[in-house]
Amino acid sequence: MTPALRDLSRLCIHTATTKPWGIEEAVSRYSAAGVRGITVWRTAFADRGPAAAGRLIRDSGLRVVSLCRGGFFPAGSAEQRARAVDENRRCIDEAAELGAPHVVLVCGSAAGQPLEESRRQIADGIAAVLPHASAAGVRLAVEPLHPMYAGERSAVNTLGQARAICSQIGSPWVGIAVDVYHTWWDDRLEDEIRACGRDGRLLALHVSDWRTPTVDLLEDRGLMGEGCIPIRRIRGWADDAGFGGFIEVEIFSRRLWARDQARFLDDIKEAYLAHV
Amino acid sequence: MTPALRDLSRLCIHTATTKPWGIEEAVSRYSAAGVRGITVWRTAFADRGPAAAGRLIRDSGLRVVSLCRGGFFPAGSAEQRARAVDENRRCIDEAAELGAPHVVLVCGSAAGQPLEESRRQIADGIAAVLPHASAAGVRLAVEPLHPMYAGERSAVNTLGQARAICSQIGSPWVGIAVDVYHTWWDDRLEDEIRACGRDGRLLALHVSDWRTPTVDLLEDRGLMGEGCIPIRRIRGWADDAGFGGFIEVEIFSRRLWARDQARFLDDIKEAYLAHV
Repeated sequence: MTPALRDLSRLCIHTATTKPWGIEEAVSRYSAAGVRGITVWRTAFADRGPAAAGRLIRDSGLRVVSLCRGGFFPAGSAEQRARAVDENRRCIDEAAELGAPHVVLVCGSAAGQPLEESRRQIADGIAAVLPHASAAGVRLAVEPLHPMYAGERSAVNTLGQARAICSQIGSPWVGIAVDVYHTWWDDRLEDEIRACGRDGRLLALHVSDWRTPTVDLLEDRGLMGEGCIPIRRIRGWADDAGFGGFIEVEIFSRRLWARDQARFLDDIKEAYLAHV
Repeated sequence: MTPALRDLSRLCIHTATTKPWGIEEAVSRYSAAGVRGITVWRTAFADRGPAAAGRLIRDSGLRVVSLCRGGFFPAGSAEQRARAVDENRRCIDEAAELGAPHVVLVCGSAAGQPLEESRRQIADGIAAVLPHASAAGVRLAVEPLHPMYAGERSAVNTLGQARAICSQIGSPWVGIAVDVYHTWWDDRLEDEIRACGRDGRLLALHVSDWRTPTVDLLEDRGLMGEGCIPIRRIRGWADDAGFGGFIEVEIFSRRLWARDQARFLDDIKEAYLAHV
């Protein structure tokens, strides 16, 4: 049994989790609540820009854990794929300005072609932006997405596939983001997390919960403890594999966005200590 | 490239696909349309009972391909699991009365316990009903369900897991139902289908399509050609593995159930020849 976490020192929250808050309110609320890290969605700094958002965050005492998100490499035409590579370079620049050590990649999938072709295009896209990433000092974290997103959001649907892409590219600037929501069902998960750790590729750990029933494919995630994911057990596997980094709460939920966000933040802290 | 099917000789439709029709109407409509097989959902013969439904089907010239569905073995208490075993014995009896060569198993999952415990309980449950199945001359077809159903409908989410259960039980009365909707995302699919064929376990092939976006986890499947599943390619893998049996159209869709079912049936035939 993995022991509970004793404090909030590894707690990070994604701006998308408390979407009704703008970034200023998120930063001041998280900081006042004792949260230590923040992962910023690109939409969150639209107005002020990444450099100013980074200063705001550092001034509050929070750490920038990650920028969400790059990726979406596959497309039917070479021109579209080249545009995606350009967009990922911009995203990497923003991460550098923000002060984020890595960009999470939602790799993409093009419905009109076989998944293995999309997977090839993903590897090619990552390879194409890699020099830009290493020059900027920004790592790329491949996030396998749940198989229910294979048709449009990501053709990378298991940790095994993410590891295969990392091995193929073979750069210290490419690693993996493990999200319990996307991966909990996989009977290879424990072994794969161990292998990610052994390879030094475990860059991020995202937590939320899987509700039964789930009524929406995108925006019905649960707060930790509201669902059936063995979150603490998976977090234990990650820590046993040498992870030890920030644990990022990433919850997309219309139900929870409709709540009073200050009380929701209290509940996140409580659920984090009780279930992660 | 797998060549198209040239006729409807392998076309089977599930009663749930044309849910607005009662079994009499489904049987007469399918038969008049040149469909050759029917898979019956237990709910479809509620009033007349399985033996009379079987006679109705045989008199129409259709073949009974399968009975849907048994399973749901995992549960928190031994008493509940024993009730599930009893229910599966009743389902096997109904299949025998109906004249169905096999029962499809939606294996179940109990949210309050680890998936591997549910998987053990599934293997135990199948083993418990196996003598009843062999005595009745009814095979059991383990159907891996999409990982999005791992929390409540099936802890068996890949062909690899289904094969592991079959190997563990090691009986010719247990095989596998491959549904493209549940398995298309899996990068191991081709190899796993080949292995199923080699082991003589390929009992059924279900087709439908994955729409992007999918707006409901249960009832938003697409007609073949409406989505992104490479259906013909997967059917080719199954046939190359020695399958050659009925191809079952199983589509749950509120959108399609709301249509005129006679025109929907015409579209099924057309889509079957164009995309399967």
